[in-house]
Amino acid sequence: MNIREEVYQMKQVSPLLAASDGEQRNEALKRIAELLAGHKEEIFAENRKDLAAAEQAGISPAVVKRLKFDEGKLSASVQGIAQLTDLPDPLNRVTLDRNLDEGLRLMRVTCPIGVIGVIFEARPDALIQISSLCLKSGNCAVLKGGKETTHTNRILFRYIREGLVKAGLPEKCMLQAEQHQEIDELLKCDDCVDLLIPRGSNAFVRYIMDNTRIPVMGHADGLCHIYVDKDADQEKALRIIVDAKTQYTAACNAVETLLIHKDIAADFIPKLSEVLSKEHVALRGTEAVTRLTGGEPVEIQDFREYLDLIVSAAVVEDEDEAIRHINTYGSHHTDAIITEDPEAAERFMTLVDSAGVYQNCSTRFADGFRYGFGAEVGISTGKIHARGPVGLQGLVTYKYRLYGDGQIVGDYASGVRQFHFRDNNKTE
Amino acid sequence: MNIREEVYQMKQVSPLLAASDGEQRNEALKRIAELLAGHKEEIFAENRKDLAAAEQAGISPAVVKRLKFDEGKLSASVQGIAQLTDLPDPLNRVTLDRNLDEGLRLMRVTCPIGVIGVIFEARPDALIQISSLCLKSGNCAVLKGGKETTHTNRILFRYIREGLVKAGLPEKCMLQAEQHQEIDELLKCDDCVDLLIPRGSNAFVRYIMDNTRIPVMGHADGLCHIYVDKDADQEKALRIIVDAKTQYTAACNAVETLLIHKDIAADFIPKLSEVLSKEHVALRGTEAVTRLTGGEPVEIQDFREYLDLIVSAAVVEDEDEAIRHINTYGSHHTDAIITEDPEAAERFMTLVDSAGVYQNCSTRFADGFRYGFGAEVGISTGKIHARGPVGLQGLVTYKYRLYGDGQIVGDYASGVRQFHFRDNNKTE
Repeated sequence: MNIREEVYQMKQVSPLLAASDGEQRNEALKRIAELLAGHKEEIFAENRKDLAAAEQAGISPAVVKRLKFDEGKLSASVQGIAQLTDLPDPLNRVTLDRNLDEGLRLMRVTCPIGVIGVIFEARPDALIQISSLCLKSGNCAVLKGGKETTHTNRILFRYIREGLVKAGLPEKCMLQAEQHQEIDELLKCDDCVDLLIPRGSNAFVRYIMDNTRIPVMGHADGLCHIYVDKDADQEKALRIIVDAKTQYTAACNAVETLLIHKDIAADFIPKLSEVLSKEHVALRGTEAVTRLTGGEPVEIQDFREYLDLIVSAAVVEDEDEAIRHINTYGSHHTDAIITEDPEAAERFMTLVDSAGVYQNCSTRFADGFRYGFGAEVGISTGKIHARGPVGLQGLVTYKYRLYGDGQIVGDYASGVRQFHFRDNNKTE
Repeated sequence: MNIREEVYQMKQVSPLLAASDGEQRNEALKRIAELLAGHKEEIFAENRKDLAAAEQAGISPAVVKRLKFDEGKLSASVQGIAQLTDLPDPLNRVTLDRNLDEGLRLMRVTCPIGVIGVIFEARPDALIQISSLCLKSGNCAVLKGGKETTHTNRILFRYIREGLVKAGLPEKCMLQAEQHQEIDELLKCDDCVDLLIPRGSNAFVRYIMDNTRIPVMGHADGLCHIYVDKDADQEKALRIIVDAKTQYTAACNAVETLLIHKDIAADFIPKLSEVLSKEHVALRGTEAVTRLTGGEPVEIQDFREYLDLIVSAAVVEDEDEAIRHINTYGSHHTDAIITEDPEAAERFMTLVDSAGVYQNCSTRFADGFRYGFGAEVGISTGKIHARGPVGLQGLVTYKYRLYGDGQIVGDYASGVRQFHFRDNNKTE
């Protein structure tokens, strides 16, 4: 069976998963956690096959580290499922309850989005996290992981499916895609798939966005800024910059561009240069920067998302120039101001058009776990639907239920009846 | 200046509009209402030019009626603005307020989407309604109305802009596009425009959706169903069907397909046929229907959105077949069940995957005014972001503000510090 047929069948069962109650979905999550914990040796053995293949293929140690699925990662995954089980059911929440007139009652009730396609990097824990989030929120999911984790994903998925079937949920509500060409097939299923969540490289996400009519949630770029204000605590600034750049360079929320207020440039930039050099971070500055640090200047237009131990820096006239720079060149992901002036912070946070606007802390905090969401399916830089780290809340939509007793619009249009809006408390 | 340059400038001022306070935006709305009311004779005179041109062009009386902007429509528009002014500010609402750790506070705060392009039909009141909704929600807007209302729109827009400028809002936050080719230019401005809301014919909306990378909110089709259950009150069903079909045939929420439970088909269909014929509605049925009514049968695959005095009908085995039919052939807009059985109603409402799911009332209720939203910018059949009639709520997004005091992720990764999530009440 090809993806198109499988996804079509998934679409047919999606209302059944939507109608399942929260306890049944929690039961599935519990079964999955038990199955994974109970078959850990088998899972680790499959993972060793992927690791061996990766080493043979000469894949970098950093990537191999992510592929590895061991006791620690298994137990974190199982714990993650348990946390998710404890969260309140995101479905069937009444967010509006209004009588439009006597006997005509409108309710807005949360429900799953339907069928979601998630394409994610080669990390076995990602498969577990994403499928649990989709299950908890009553969404069917097509899951496509990185090919480097084929063996691990296959066995993990087997137990995920077994768990949900044992809980009485429809088998066809989860599907694992293994072949890369299946992504292109999936992109064409816009009549069956309600949302795509691609994770991965900039180029890959952009390819997805450009080649489908299905709504896409996620981010292509992660070009995050830190603006060091004239009223910054410079020690704080240095510490935050080092963390935001070096703590995990490949992350989308790592800082890529520093903007420094002109009043403190002469004082701060030499210190910055020294600290970065100790951390083996290359500083690429405009002329105003290199005048203080030496080296060849670069143009602002050449600032990039490096995902490496490189950072760009420029000097700005004032806070407004920093804001304009960020809104123009940024990716609307996460941007921070370092300042002790609360007014400057408020101005920055109000005017910077990004999913995350921070004062005096590292951009690396932009993450579903760190926000206390339990988990995330991804980080969205779009402004439609969910923005920033997306947990359960971003996986639901709502429908309007209207309960009547024969009401017709003609009576209201002619004036025979009038609307009498009255909200019934309490909604969420 | 071309649209691209104008929209680019609009993007630059959009953070300023986002930062304006609710009172200032209300002040702008009040000024606009005063200006419109104070220049009504001038506005009516411009409207008469459009009406004369329409009559000369042989435009149908129904459309001319919509073009007409008279005392009644002006006063309704001014009243609409007043209602909107009274609504609470949709911006700067704190929907999450959480300490991640001591001194590290996360807030999720509502903010405008940014720059919205709205392309709407030839109805002068639509221009007023849409621009007021955008202003109230702090969004910049590019407004393109139907060419048949050129004169009226031009003068209305002049006073809208005058009102917002008098209230101290940036002049460039609203822009009227007049030329049809400007729509195509607008579709290319995906770096500046955050959302498009096209209203109009199925083909037009689909054209917009297929020719832009900008997110689109709205609906192409409005293929609404009424399912008459075996436990329906048949008199209620007939009354609702007549209203849903005839009260305004050109509306997207008019019913197009009737599904009738087989147990009542022999009893109900002849009555239906008689009632519809009195209302001059043509009934196009499958063979199971025409066996009872006479006439040539049509296939289910040929059921369409007529927007006319025509309705399709089929007989279904049971409620589940009705639900499957609606999910397969419907447009996920608004679908109703007529039944006295509350369980059948709940099943229908849970399993039908539409923005509106109704029991015992007309599909024509699907409308922002009738839902008590004050107004709507459109009706969305998408499941991402807003669904159903879209009022102010669908015109805002949010950003995460994180206030720290030098916190870095490294400390949490190494275990030097731990997250201590604590929600600060009360958020909305």
